[in-house]
Amino acid sequence: MTAKKLKVGIVGGTGYTGVELLRLLSVHPNVTLTAITSRGDAGSAVADMFPSLRGYVDLAFSDPAQANLSECDVVFFATPHGVAMGQAQTLLDAKVKLIDLAADFRLQDTAVFEKWYKLPHSCPNVLREAVYGIPELYREKIKSAQVIGNPGCYPTTVLLGLAPLLEQGLIDYSAPIIADSKSGVSGAGRKAEVATLFAESSDSMKAYGVAGHRHHPEIYAQLTQLAGTELHFIFVPHLIPMIRGMLSTIYVKLSEKAKSVDLQALYEQRYQHERFVDVMPTGSLPETRSVRGSNQIRIALHRQAEAGYLTLVVVQDNLVKGAAGQAVQNMNIMFSLPENTGLEVVPFLP
Amino acid sequence: MTAKKLKVGIVGGTGYTGVELLRLLSVHPNVTLTAITSRGDAGSAVADMFPSLRGYVDLAFSDPAQANLSECDVVFFATPHGVAMGQAQTLLDAKVKLIDLAADFRLQDTAVFEKWYKLPHSCPNVLREAVYGIPELYREKIKSAQVIGNPGCYPTTVLLGLAPLLEQGLIDYSAPIIADSKSGVSGAGRKAEVATLFAESSDSMKAYGVAGHRHHPEIYAQLTQLAGTELHFIFVPHLIPMIRGMLSTIYVKLSEKAKSVDLQALYEQRYQHERFVDVMPTGSLPETRSVRGSNQIRIALHRQAEAGYLTLVVVQDNLVKGAAGQAVQNMNIMFSLPENTGLEVVPFLP
Amino acid sequence: MTAKKLKVGIVGGTGYTGVELLRLLSVHPNVTLTAITSRGDAGSAVADMFPSLRGYVDLAFSDPAQANLSECDVVFFATPHGVAMGQAQTLLDAKVKLIDLAADFRLQDTAVFEKWYKLPHSCPNVLREAVYGIPELYREKIKSAQVIGNPGCYPTTVLLGLAPLLEQGLIDYSAPIIADSKSGVSGAGRKAEVATLFAESSDSMKAYGVAGHRHHPEIYAQLTQLAGTELHFIFVPHLIPMIRGMLSTIYVKLSEKAKSVDLQALYEQRYQHERFVDVMPTGSLPETRSVRGSNQIRIALHRQAEAGYLTLVVVQDNLVKGAAGQAVQNMNIMFSLPENTGLEVVPFLP
Amino acid sequence: MTAKKLKVGIVGGTGYTGVELLRLLSVHPNVTLTAITSRGDAGSAVADMFPSLRGYVDLAFSDPAQANLSECDVVFFATPHGVAMGQAQTLLDAKVKLIDLAADFRLQDTAVFEKWYKLPHSCPNVLREAVYGIPELYREKIKSAQVIGNPGCYPTTVLLGLAPLLEQGLIDYSAPIIADSKSGVSGAGRKAEVATLFAESSDSMKAYGVAGHRHHPEIYAQLTQLAGTELHFIFVPHLIPMIRGMLSTIYVKLSEKAKSVDLQALYEQRYQHERFVDVMPTGSLPETRSVRGSNQIRIALHRQAEAGYLTLVVVQDNLVKGAAGQAVQNMNIMFSLPENTGLEVVPFLP
Repeated sequence: MTAKKLKVGIVGGTGYTGVELLRLLSVHPNVTLTAITSRGDAGSAVADMFPSLRGYVDLAFSDPAQANLSECDVVFFATPHGVAMGQAQTLLDAKVKLIDLAADFRLQDTAVFEKWYKLPHSCPNVLREAVYGIPELYREKIKSAQVIGNPGCYPTTVLLGLAPLLEQGLIDYSAPIIADSKSGVSGAGRKAEVATLFAESSDSMKAYGVAGHRHHPEIYAQLTQLAGTELHFIFVPHLIPMIRGMLSTIYVKLSEKAKSVDLQALYEQRYQHERFVDVMPTGSLPETRSVRGSNQIRIALHRQAEAGYLTLVVVQDNLVKGAAGQAVQNMNIMFSLPENTGLEVVPFLP
Repeated sequence: MTAKKLKVGIVGGTGYTGVELLRLLSVHPNVTLTAITSRGDAGSAVADMFPSLRGYVDLAFSDPAQANLSECDVVFFATPHGVAMGQAQTLLDAKVKLIDLAADFRLQDTAVFEKWYKLPHSCPNVLREAVYGIPELYREKIKSAQVIGNPGCYPTTVLLGLAPLLEQGLIDYSAPIIADSKSGVSGAGRKAEVATLFAESSDSMKAYGVAGHRHHPEIYAQLTQLAGTELHFIFVPHLIPMIRGMLSTIYVKLSEKAKSVDLQALYEQRYQHERFVDVMPTGSLPETRSVRGSNQIRIALHRQAEAGYLTLVVVQDNLVKGAAGQAVQNMNIMFSLPENTGLEVVPFLP
Repeated sequence: MTAKKLKVGIVGGTGYTGVELLRLLSVHPNVTLTAITSRGDAGSAVADMFPSLRGYVDLAFSDPAQANLSECDVVFFATPHGVAMGQAQTLLDAKVKLIDLAADFRLQDTAVFEKWYKLPHSCPNVLREAVYGIPELYREKIKSAQVIGNPGCYPTTVLLGLAPLLEQGLIDYSAPIIADSKSGVSGAGRKAEVATLFAESSDSMKAYGVAGHRHHPEIYAQLTQLAGTELHFIFVPHLIPMIRGMLSTIYVKLSEKAKSVDLQALYEQRYQHERFVDVMPTGSLPETRSVRGSNQIRIALHRQAEAGYLTLVVVQDNLVKGAAGQAVQNMNIMFSLPENTGLEVVPFLP
Repeated sequence: MTAKKLKVGIVGGTGYTGVELLRLLSVHPNVTLTAITSRGDAGSAVADMFPSLRGYVDLAFSDPAQANLSECDVVFFATPHGVAMGQAQTLLDAKVKLIDLAADFRLQDTAVFEKWYKLPHSCPNVLREAVYGIPELYREKIKSAQVIGNPGCYPTTVLLGLAPLLEQGLIDYSAPIIADSKSGVSGAGRKAEVATLFAESSDSMKAYGVAGHRHHPEIYAQLTQLAGTELHFIFVPHLIPMIRGMLSTIYVKLSEKAKSVDLQALYEQRYQHERFVDVMPTGSLPETRSVRGSNQIRIALHRQAEAGYLTLVVVQDNLVKGAAGQAVQNMNIMFSLPENTGLEVVPFLP
């Protein structure tokens, strides 16, 4: 049996989503890592920067200008916002598929994009064809997509947490949907900044982005699309002293119709064939470590009968299902591989 | 000047609220530590268990049965729920004041107490005279109280966070008040349990008590009292991998009346003479470390104009303002000492 | 192709080495998990205790008395010291191979065993046939072993760190060998104890076992065997606020002969065919996270020319190469599987 | 009683030693904070950068060029190496005393200084008069000093740990003194760097500076002075995932003479009048948290009889006794205040 081997490029391999892609792709049975670019570190061995990859990745970082990305089957962009859209058309012209882990292809409304990212969108026509990469919501479109806007980490938890309710019209939109989300510090990226130093962010926590966070419009756009209506959405992210892990606690007012629905059964049914979505038994209290290092997302439902509310608790590893793992899942779909290929990493506990 | 010296006893000095009382009281200028009891550790030096106290506390733990607590001016109970009520009447008869850091004197409704703590209340008449010990709400009553029910850690954040709104009737009670609270692991106490081992609770987080937490009825009772009306209250606590620190994110729907009120000014005015309540400037994002080790509580207001909601972020050190520090603050008031005596500990950062 | 499937039993599956065995074996291509025993938790699903295993382990814990371990090909003991030796002869009689992750089969001198473990050794004849399970030192014997004494975590770092020097006689034994070792808290096990609570062991560190640690005689016995001479060995372990990870800093006085030896080359040559031993380039400073979750051990050499000393820095994941991973490596060897089967887990970083 | 109030300036108040000085000095009864300089943050309120100081420090950072430091009684330099020596003569001419927390006045040998700090020493004559600021070793000189070179954090642990042996000639210098030291991450300072990000340095540890660390020559110079002889000294620092705290494990070969000496008694006697040095009972295992936030240093002795070695375990808070606290202790001595003034902060535990 000769396995199909995809030639894979990674643009921007020095951040956390980059090294996480490398962790997953270096042992993916259908992948040949072909190029990993980094402007600043061109020429140095990847495994010198990330000794965890010694023995798994032999490549050196190459200069983006010289990397032959057009020979790849697929290129992942693990770059700052705005980079992927500059190279998208060229790659597409060379029949290369593209998965962007930044925000360039997440927001269909370019005005919203420009407001939040302070950048004009340079390829709106490519954007129009791009698919928002949550397989459990948009699998069919992903199959034939040339460009994936891989979702933000927070949106993945909120959208998969709410999708069954939204799809069935079980939310009373007169009250706002509230997502109180908590993220490990790796979510802030591998940038040298005082605020995320160990001595600043350990043994402490804080809310941030209360006045407005870039994932708010991204979640909002998807929520309204899934709901088919306008709604109010309050989103407060928090920074938690852990490396990986994300937990969203979501508060929704149930509609009259929902009162007679077995929501636990609804969720179990909705996700019964989803390898990476685990609806926990009623009353469960999932811990982020239960998904550490894996592409799993776990959802638990708690009904606050008296107030007519439902509280959802959703956990994922922000770097896997929230970023690199979901990107690989999208790649598998795009190339007709079994969706879990290379993603059967058992979570680490402890 | 001869300072008045209070003879102070601590029942149950081996937990975190116990050692925190010792940290504060051992250098309190008006206190003589007279007895520290522990059934299991009687006879052993306090500083052997807590080497941090070497040079500050020379006492040994004494057997509760033999400690001469009736000679004290005030006795703190840093014990499991149910202990203080067994000794309250005897101490009161001996003219000893009593500050209970457990729940025995927090809930005026004994049926509610018995439901949540699975214990009959053994001294309802003492309970009736007990004062709920949040000085910023009940200072006058505390001055003449013989028995203080020192509040739970979570309630202190939620109640001081909401008091100005409740007092002024600025909340629309048709929507539930939602408190999404996060606590450091010391809040779980110094008990040998698997769930709070370092290897279990580090680098991970979880929600807990979603189906019902003992602080819910405590907060609820105070909320309805301050509001003067029934209301809905949703409370979800979370366990965060940090030693100390508590942050509550509170979501409330503002009433019509509130829309024309300068809430920032309201809060600043309400707390302007409160030494331990810090209303942060508009838009602030307080970190728990900004109060680490101190009796300070900090509040920040964020208005979600569109949804008609207000988001409050409240931080405190759960062992200080949330427990031992507030207890000492209550003691100072009960004995007519300046309220900040012994409590001017500058927070630790980093 | 029909892969050979081994029937595997685990006795004592509720501790950290137990769950780590489960993480590795549940996706091992040649293993069928047959029984996982736990006296206290018999009947409950393994994945209820460890939700990280949901979807990977469907078994429930079974009662040790009723588990049909004699039908297994191999049984791992992830139990307290003293359990394996009670069942060894029965299993051997049933042709079951046995890998003990506790200390029962590590020390050939039963008097030393009894002194340090306060237990008489109940099967000295089995012990005599047992092999000390470091593949890089005793691979040939492991191939035909029926019983493996899987090494302690600290010994693995010290012995693999020193083996090339000991084998070549490059140490001056007039000075003691000093191993200053540091371990993450998971090394203390999953027992409910105050000392290893998050609030006790986070943001702090300590030395322990300075007056004598059980791994001292284990290391000492191996050192003298490899050296072929008596020597002095000082061992000070430390507890570090991290979940996993172990780092040993080893100080040795080099012999005259060593002064003309290229030690870096010696180490690289000695371990060139060892999949799991990584001799880092000269001057490297390995971090424990570079092996997190993997069976890798990394060694770096630093020569202190002036003092005639060599400093070795050795890192491993204490639960993998220091316990469960090495046990699986031993199993692979005992059953003639490729040594790295099921062990190609890329380390997690960050 | 009118307390003498010192006018105090701090140059470089934005790093960890700066904010720690502010924590201690803002409530020091004999201090008036007069100026806190920062080139980059001039004009902004100190409490905006460090909200922990709200209510304690009302000053804004001032521009170094405009701060009237010459009106101060004493100026602390919490600056990078090389800054203090540029301003020393001017301040001395204005009768201002100077305490440098960097390295400018720690090494009497300017060639050694220049080798390790890559800077020429610009005021060797001031240096000659400077006193190395460990009060327990050089108290008399500190009393009349105009300039203090406040010691490095590591040197304080090693020197106070070894001083009694060195003074009494109880070490066999034929073997090297080995200090295996461990530091919390705050020791790396408040600089934006990738290596000390939370996601890089949490849940991991490493050795560093094995090939040479700036504190080696500093310790070496003091060791040889106290020993009165040449010796070998091996020093390996390690970075530990905790905010504060430092632990040095020190291995020394005892001289023949030492074999009949009660070393525990020797240490207790040597430090009996030292407020900030705590010789722990025989066999103690001090934790770094036992000194968290305080100026205490704790020492425990462990004799390795067989090998003729003594192992010392020394703990301190690297930012207090290892930096700002010792600096304040020096100030107290220089101005004839009780040595513990402003330093009676009870350590935080948990």
